[in-house]
Amino acid sequence: MKKQIAILGSTGSIGTQALDVARAHPGRFDIQVITAATNAKLLVQQALEFHPHTVVIADEGKYAEVKEALSGVPIRVLAGHAALEEAASDPAIDLVLNALVGSVGLRPTVAAINAGKDVALANKETLVVAGELVMDLVRRNGVKLLPVDSEHSAIFQCLAGESENRIEKIYLTASGGPFRGRSKEYLAAVGPEQALRHPNWVMGAKITVDSATLMNKGLEVIEAKWLFGLEMRQIDVIVHPQSIVHSLVQFEDGSIKAQLGLPDMKLPIQYALTYPSRIKNSLKRFNFMDFPDLTFEQADRDTFRNLALAFEALEAKGNMPCILNAANEVVVAAFLKSEVGFLQMSDIIEETMQTVAYHAAPSLDSYTETDRISREVARELVTKSKKIYQVAK
Amino acid sequence: MKKQIAILGSTGSIGTQALDVARAHPGRFDIQVITAATNAKLLVQQALEFHPHTVVIADEGKYAEVKEALSGVPIRVLAGHAALEEAASDPAIDLVLNALVGSVGLRPTVAAINAGKDVALANKETLVVAGELVMDLVRRNGVKLLPVDSEHSAIFQCLAGESENRIEKIYLTASGGPFRGRSKEYLAAVGPEQALRHPNWVMGAKITVDSATLMNKGLEVIEAKWLFGLEMRQIDVIVHPQSIVHSLVQFEDGSIKAQLGLPDMKLPIQYALTYPSRIKNSLKRFNFMDFPDLTFEQADRDTFRNLALAFEALEAKGNMPCILNAANEVVVAAFLKSEVGFLQMSDIIEETMQTVAYHAAPSLDSYTETDRISREVARELVTKSKKIYQVAK
Repeated sequence: MKKQIAILGSTGSIGTQALDVARAHPGRFDIQVITAATNAKLLVQQALEFHPHTVVIADEGKYAEVKEALSGVPIRVLAGHAALEEAASDPAIDLVLNALVGSVGLRPTVAAINAGKDVALANKETLVVAGELVMDLVRRNGVKLLPVDSEHSAIFQCLAGESENRIEKIYLTASGGPFRGRSKEYLAAVGPEQALRHPNWVMGAKITVDSATLMNKGLEVIEAKWLFGLEMRQIDVIVHPQSIVHSLVQFEDGSIKAQLGLPDMKLPIQYALTYPSRIKNSLKRFNFMDFPDLTFEQADRDTFRNLALAFEALEAKGNMPCILNAANEVVVAAFLKSEVGFLQMSDIIEETMQTVAYHAAPSLDSYTETDRISREVARELVTKSKKIYQVAK
Repeated sequence: MKKQIAILGSTGSIGTQALDVARAHPGRFDIQVITAATNAKLLVQQALEFHPHTVVIADEGKYAEVKEALSGVPIRVLAGHAALEEAASDPAIDLVLNALVGSVGLRPTVAAINAGKDVALANKETLVVAGELVMDLVRRNGVKLLPVDSEHSAIFQCLAGESENRIEKIYLTASGGPFRGRSKEYLAAVGPEQALRHPNWVMGAKITVDSATLMNKGLEVIEAKWLFGLEMRQIDVIVHPQSIVHSLVQFEDGSIKAQLGLPDMKLPIQYALTYPSRIKNSLKRFNFMDFPDLTFEQADRDTFRNLALAFEALEAKGNMPCILNAANEVVVAAFLKSEVGFLQMSDIIEETMQTVAYHAAPSLDSYTETDRISREVARELVTKSKKIYQVAK
C-alpha cells in the first residue's frame, strides 16, 4: 500500500528534495498535501504534477493566485498559518514531513502528533522550542518522530536494533561552515554573501547562515537532547570538515557506531519516509578514494559564541531555548539584509536571553508568547545596533 | 541467569582476554569448560580460578601434569583433539567461544552447532575452510554464530536492526600491518622479528604474521562471504592504518554504517558473549583528539600477494580456500622458524593451490583430507625452498 504523505514546506530545500525522492520511487508514496509559505508559482506547479488533494499557501495574499491556477483540477486550496495545522491532521495522511523553517513549524507538528500521525521532522525548531512538551505528546499518542536532519538521522540509524542498550554519549559532527578556523577580527567584517557559501551542503539561506555561526549545531544539540532523551553532558560536538561522517553514538560498552555517506539530504529524507525499510536508489555512492582523509577537531565555542549560547540555553531549560531560537531567527533575517554584522548576532541573542522573562515549565501557548516577545526584543536590539553597524560600515 | 560458557583455546590471546571479560563482570558468566593446546601450566591456573567442570589439554603428553595438578578439585580432565569436540557439545553449555588457532577449530565448531549451542567464533578458519557447510548447519540447527574478529563484529554490530535491509557492499578495514607501503625488495629481507611488530593490535604470533602478509585480511574476506551471505564483488578491503574504524556496511540506499573504537579485542569478545545486550565496562574510551586524522588507502594486492590469492581461492570455491589456509598455516610456521622468507610464503601457497586436487562440493571428511594433503604438499615445498633460502641468506 502506498504511504499517504503530507509535505509541509514543499517548495523549500527539503520539500523539493522530498518530492525528488517521491519522483524517483513512483508507486510508493501518495503526496496528498503540499504547502508553501509564499512561493505560489512553484506550489501550483508541484500540485499539477503530484495531484495532492489539498494545497496550503500560508501567505493569504497569494490565495487568489493559487486558487485561480488550480481552478480546473480537483484540489482543495487553503490559505493562512492555521490551515497548516488543519492540513497536518488530515485523516487521509499516514506521515507528515514537516519541512517548515523556523518556530512556525511547532504548531503543525503538535497538530499532526495529536491526530496520531507519524512525523518526519526536518523542522528542528519544533524540538528546540518545545522539546519536552512535544516528546511527551509523542509518547502519549504512540506515534513515531523520525529525524530528517542528517546528524539526527545518522544517530537514529545507528540506534536501529539497539533499543535495549544505553547510550553513553553522542557526537554530533559539524562541517565548521565557511568560517572554520577564522578569528573574531575576520568574522567582524563578513557579510551575507560570504556566509551563504557553505563548503559541503546546499541548503536554504537561514540554515546556511546558522551553519556559518554554528547556531545550527547548537540547535541540533538541543534537538538531540529531546529526541534521544539525553543529558547535556552526553552530547559532544566535533568539527569534521569533510561532512562524510554524519554523527556517532557511543554505547555503554564503549563501542561507537557511525553513519557515513556523501552529503546529500535525499538519503535522510528517504530513510524517514521508508523507515524501518531502506530502498534502493541511484544516489551517488561514497568512495574512500575521493575522501582518503577524514579529519576531526574541537569546535571553537569562543569564536563561534552561538554554540556556547545554545548550550547555556539547554542548561537553563524551560523557555530559554525558545528565546534563543526566536532571537536567532530575527538576527539571521537582519544579517541577510545587512542590518547587523556577523558578531552582533551573538550579542543580540545573548541580550534577548537576559531580557525576556524565564519560565520553567511553559505550555504551548506560553511558548508562542515567549516566541512573540523574544522577537520583539530582538527586533528592537537589531534597530538599535543597525544604526551603530551602518555608521561602522 | 548466568550464561554457561565453554572457551576453546583459553590460554591463547583471545582466550585469556575472554577470561578478563568474565573476571570484569562477576556473576554474569559461568566458565564451565576451558581447553588448551599445550600450555598446561596456565590451563591449571585458570582452572583453579574459574572452577570449570571440565578442562581439556589437547597435547596428550601433558595429560598427567594437568590431572596431577587438579587432583584435589572436582574438575574432569580430558586430553586429545577429539575431547575438544566432546567439550564443545557438553549439555551444560549455552555458548561456545571457539578461540582455537587454525583449521583444528573446524570440527569443534561443527560439534557445538550440531549440539544446538550458540558459537562465538574467533577461529576464522572454521568458515574459511568450510563456510558453506558450517552456515548450512547453523541454519538447520537454528543456532547463532557470533563473530569475534573485530572486523566481522563491526559489521555484525552495524547489521543490528537491519535484518530486512539488503547489504550493497561491505568494507573490511585493514591496518596494513608493519610493512604497509614497503616494496617487494624490502619484504624479501624481512624476518619473523620484524613481522611480529604489529603497529596497533596485540595478538598471537600466527595472526600477527598473517596481518603482515595481508593473508589475515584475505581469510577475513572469505569468512565475511559466508557469515553475511555475500558475493565476492560485494566485499572490499580498505587499508586504514589507525585501526579505529573496524569495518563498514553500505546498504541498498547508499547509507553506510561503521563501528569504531580503540583497537581492543575485549570489546568484540564481550559483545559476542552478551549479544544482543551491551554491558557497561571500564575499557578505555576512544577520543577524537587522540586520532584527529583517520586515513584510508587502497590495499596493495601486487606487493602483498596473499590477499590476491585469497580472492582467487574464494572465486574458485569448493576446497580451494581450505588448500589456501592449510598451506598458509604451514608456511607461517616455517617463516616463524626462519625456514622460508617472507615472499616465499606466497609462492608456496600458490604452488600448493595449483597442486592439490580440486573438489567442488566437499564433505566434512573431505575437507579434513584436503587439509592433510595440502599440509603435506606445502611442507615438501618448504623443505625444497628451505635449502634455497638458507643458501641465499
